[in-house]
Amino acid sequence: MTSIAEPLQPPTRVLLGPGPSNVHPRVLRAMSVPLVGHLDPAFLRIMDETRRLLQFVFQTRNELTIAISGTGSAGMEACLTNLLEPGDEAVVCVNGVFGTRMADIVERCGAIVVRAEAPWGQVVEPAAIAAALSRCRRPKLVAIVHAETSTGAWQPLEGIAELAHAAGALLVVDAVTSLGGCPVRVDEWGIDACYSGTQKCLSCPPGLAPITFGPRALDVLLQRRTKVQSWYLDLTMTQKYWGAERVYHHTAPISMNYALHEALRLIAEEGLEARWSRHERNHAALKQGLAAIGLTIASQPGHQLWTLNSVRIPDGVEDARLRTALLEEYNIEIGGGLGPLKGQTWRIGLMGESSTAANVLLVLSTLERVLPRCGYPIEAGAGVAAAQRAYAA
Amino acid sequence: MTSIAEPLQPPTRVLLGPGPSNVHPRVLRAMSVPLVGHLDPAFLRIMDETRRLLQFVFQTRNELTIAISGTGSAGMEACLTNLLEPGDEAVVCVNGVFGTRMADIVERCGAIVVRAEAPWGQVVEPAAIAAALSRCRRPKLVAIVHAETSTGAWQPLEGIAELAHAAGALLVVDAVTSLGGCPVRVDEWGIDACYSGTQKCLSCPPGLAPITFGPRALDVLLQRRTKVQSWYLDLTMTQKYWGAERVYHHTAPISMNYALHEALRLIAEEGLEARWSRHERNHAALKQGLAAIGLTIASQPGHQLWTLNSVRIPDGVEDARLRTALLEEYNIEIGGGLGPLKGQTWRIGLMGESSTAANVLLVLSTLERVLPRCGYPIEAGAGVAAAQRAYAA
Repeated sequence: MTSIAEPLQPPTRVLLGPGPSNVHPRVLRAMSVPLVGHLDPAFLRIMDETRRLLQFVFQTRNELTIAISGTGSAGMEACLTNLLEPGDEAVVCVNGVFGTRMADIVERCGAIVVRAEAPWGQVVEPAAIAAALSRCRRPKLVAIVHAETSTGAWQPLEGIAELAHAAGALLVVDAVTSLGGCPVRVDEWGIDACYSGTQKCLSCPPGLAPITFGPRALDVLLQRRTKVQSWYLDLTMTQKYWGAERVYHHTAPISMNYALHEALRLIAEEGLEARWSRHERNHAALKQGLAAIGLTIASQPGHQLWTLNSVRIPDGVEDARLRTALLEEYNIEIGGGLGPLKGQTWRIGLMGESSTAANVLLVLSTLERVLPRCGYPIEAGAGVAAAQRAYAA
Repeated sequence: MTSIAEPLQPPTRVLLGPGPSNVHPRVLRAMSVPLVGHLDPAFLRIMDETRRLLQFVFQTRNELTIAISGTGSAGMEACLTNLLEPGDEAVVCVNGVFGTRMADIVERCGAIVVRAEAPWGQVVEPAAIAAALSRCRRPKLVAIVHAETSTGAWQPLEGIAELAHAAGALLVVDAVTSLGGCPVRVDEWGIDACYSGTQKCLSCPPGLAPITFGPRALDVLLQRRTKVQSWYLDLTMTQKYWGAERVYHHTAPISMNYALHEALRLIAEEGLEARWSRHERNHAALKQGLAAIGLTIASQPGHQLWTLNSVRIPDGVEDARLRTALLEEYNIEIGGGLGPLKGQTWRIGLMGESSTAANVLLVLSTLERVLPRCGYPIEAGAGVAAAQRAYAA
């Protein structure tokens, strides 16, 4: 039977796609630490520390701040399914794949989606959200994506909570591609529920979804008339495992929690401000390098993510050919476009451990090597030189 | 900020509880292998191999045989939520925590639970299932737990599929604590949908739920009138990622899949029959050792699991005191009872890597040391000697 599977020998990649990002060796080592049980006092202590570290990264005092045992999309579903009941109205901001996914999940909760839309790559204007709220009778929440991984658009969140709260609605924020890479200030911005994934700017393997619920969201959760439709994601039960009661719910993914604990410790050691600056600096250098070889960022000017660079593919260049060459010849992964942007954009992620000057120079220099072969003649070295100047400035 | 979390230094435990079980060093090493992306050709190859390995372990040819990105309970929810629609009738066999959980999930799907019950620790009789089916107008499925982790009862499955199919219902089986430890023959037994967890007899860290859907279950899935209520667990989408289309759904937990791949390779190397025999032998030795010191297995005679031994706590012995002593003095984890069995039973798991003669002798010899202090005077050495005789026989 051993012939049906070879030994595990994956290639060593530089991960510059939309996630997972590269993982620090300390986090990889944490993954390989022998396990204790999910009710072992030693593990419960690790959970408590993880909560405190997550509160730090989310910039919140919310007690209900935990890691959901699934990937970022499970975090999205956990937020929405715990807050919504059948018949509820939810304003969903849609300007890419992940806003679309939110709307899909809202509908699966039996709730009513009221869309606030913007073209893909653009941010959603507060006026559009206000208009959507005004079309509701009694909106339960406003759901919005902070960092649209599919387009690279960076949604401003200032003032959105006020809009939502004035209408009696909660603010739910998707911070999957922002948490740990650019400012996310849950308490200061009045965010009621926020979720992320581990494999982006936290640079932990995928498998957990950090989530935080503030007092207003907790009230809504505790006053539900119906059971949460997902048993697995039911926070009324999960919180009793993470809380003082320690009531068994499901077996926590021990090793993933070890890894998250170590990844968050690395963030605490670096400091959030320093980490955000690093992401900003590397994004700026990449952008200048790309500009020097004629490539532009596709998302709305002034609202371009530091963590995920959506690059417009030049006319005549075949998307997959370039990505395959980078992967096969240089072991570099960048992402393709999603949905309507497939074939229109590349997505170059500079997240967490992957956001380094070395990787910026590497991806520019390899792009310069590969692009001419893909029908896009450029002067070799121009992009790298521009990035070097950006770092020197 | 580093002061909020100490470096990760969990103790080294012998895991003889209800899971997680001990993990082989090769699997721990797989967890620490640097990641590739979830659409990397190298990862897609690993997924294909994992499917073949899972088909082998489940003893099935089902094409839809994958690992759900959550723990065993996510596998339970995935099975039920993909097969049930509001108003459907489901016969749920309830004789412990996990049958109770199934019933809870069925209700959250908006479906109608028709119970076939047995006292905790007993198995559910076919007559009870037939009676429950006869109370349905049009039963959609029969859900049953093969190995009740909460009680140690080993449910016979022969003939159940015939009962279900004769009534036009599917058979859904929880194999969380049996898969890889005792025979699970999905195709031969006519099981339509089956799920498990990674952290029991597969001896992989918790975080994935192997699942398999046969042709009848697939038909039901594809002919749904409504969307699956969980986006995250929607197999109509997940199967397109695991299948030839490779459509992105969510970011797969890469490292967990590496670990599962390696854990399944270890099983293939050992061979299923040899692995089952090992579990049988160690259970028998433990049981004889326990009997020699007056301790009995609490589950129904003739239906006692090899993988999870539910041990009746002698009168006057304080449950937690003994477990704490084993954990703190000997680094051995055994489990307490769940629900109504709390304080009534201990649960000694002998699963996967944890099912060894060394662990049987270890747990018996430490029990002999600790029990007298907990108010249960016994002759030291009697249990160990009985287990040694069992191995010699």
